[in-house]
Amino acid sequence: MAATKASERPRRGSAPSARTRVARHPERGLYEREQVDAILDAGFYGHLAFALDGQPYAMPMLYVRDGDELFLHGSVKGRFAREIVGDVPLCFTVTLIDGLVLARSAFNHSVNYRSAVVLGRAHAVTDRARKLRAMDLLVDHIIPGRTSDARQADAGELKATEIIALEIEEASAKVRSGGPVDKRKDMQMPIWAGVLPLALVAGEPVSDEQARAPVPEYVKRRLRA
Amino acid sequence: MAATKASERPRRGSAPSARTRVARHPERGLYEREQVDAILDAGFYGHLAFALDGQPYAMPMLYVRDGDELFLHGSVKGRFAREIVGDVPLCFTVTLIDGLVLARSAFNHSVNYRSAVVLGRAHAVTDRARKLRAMDLLVDHIIPGRTSDARQADAGELKATEIIALEIEEASAKVRSGGPVDKRKDMQMPIWAGVLPLALVAGEPVSDEQARAPVPEYVKRRLRA
Repeated sequence: MAATKASERPRRGSAPSARTRVARHPERGLYEREQVDAILDAGFYGHLAFALDGQPYAMPMLYVRDGDELFLHGSVKGRFAREIVGDVPLCFTVTLIDGLVLARSAFNHSVNYRSAVVLGRAHAVTDRARKLRAMDLLVDHIIPGRTSDARQADAGELKATEIIALEIEEASAKVRSGGPVDKRKDMQMPIWAGVLPLALVAGEPVSDEQARAPVPEYVKRRLRA
Repeated sequence: MAATKASERPRRGSAPSARTRVARHPERGLYEREQVDAILDAGFYGHLAFALDGQPYAMPMLYVRDGDELFLHGSVKGRFAREIVGDVPLCFTVTLIDGLVLARSAFNHSVNYRSAVVLGRAHAVTDRARKLRAMDLLVDHIIPGRTSDARQADAGELKATEIIALEIEEASAKVRSGGPVDKRKDMQMPIWAGVLPLALVAGEPVSDEQARAPVPEYVKRRLRA
């Protein structure tokens, strides 16, 4: 689509495999790791796709990137968690919605978004120090500054925490940005066209009734981000 | 988790199959279709999970619910779209993030969210009237009021639009709401605890430079929603 800037196209290196090549709107596909990483670092939850007995699932999980790995934590636990580690192909997708694009024609309506698709395999994080590191990174990724304030996990809590590490074997990104793109013949129509920006925005913090400290500065900063 | 209200638990009917039973935190699982539908109707994009040659994928798609079907539209096109219709098991997951839950201990941090997981099979929507209906529903689901304002798709555009219909064969929902739940021994700690509400919020509309109409009322309403 014309609204995708040429500067967003891949500039160098590694041709995508058939698995991650963007089939439609190829100009929206970005294969640069730095661009993928920028999307991964801007989000904090995504959807893990895995198949069990031929049935695919997409399950929401919190994550943080640590170099070439993603630490995942969330609703994929117990029964599922045991079956998705090891030599099992996985996909983790992060999608950030940036706006609704209203064109003059229904057909040209679109959504501005950034999405990153990561393919790889995962293993359970069992080493205690590594698990603690993953938890710290995760909490600080979601609310920068929180890790040094909250009580750190004790041995029992660490043991009860399930974290899996997904190695980024392959990754691609897809971005749609900019305004509506209408057909020339539609441009004169008396129909409003434009973008309605959307963002996951924080509202005023709601203190726990028994909280014994005021709202910290780092929470207020998160509010403004 | 204690923060999930008892009233959110399933009240009647259909026991979940092993495929949709919530493995961990079973008290967060809701199998009532009306509760699933409320989540599906509150969102407008989700992630479709499918497997190709043993590799699972999760791809973002726009959707609207129409009774027991979801009309899906989005980045799963071309090569992929042909392979996911028919007798192929799919999963479509919608996740709405409601807030970050900050407990006194790192371990008890959580996220408030509503997610719906739909399992089913899909077919391509090829009938022209049905495709038009799907497009109208989709546009009006995302921006109520837009369909009667925008130029309707012509025959060529309808043909070029790829919509798939996913039949809801099985569905479940998972909800986490409420404040942090800390251990008794942590309650006296001088650490702030509470919820930072999050929502996908619309900002001020950005009019296309050549727009020949003012921002419509229904767009302003969407802004306040």
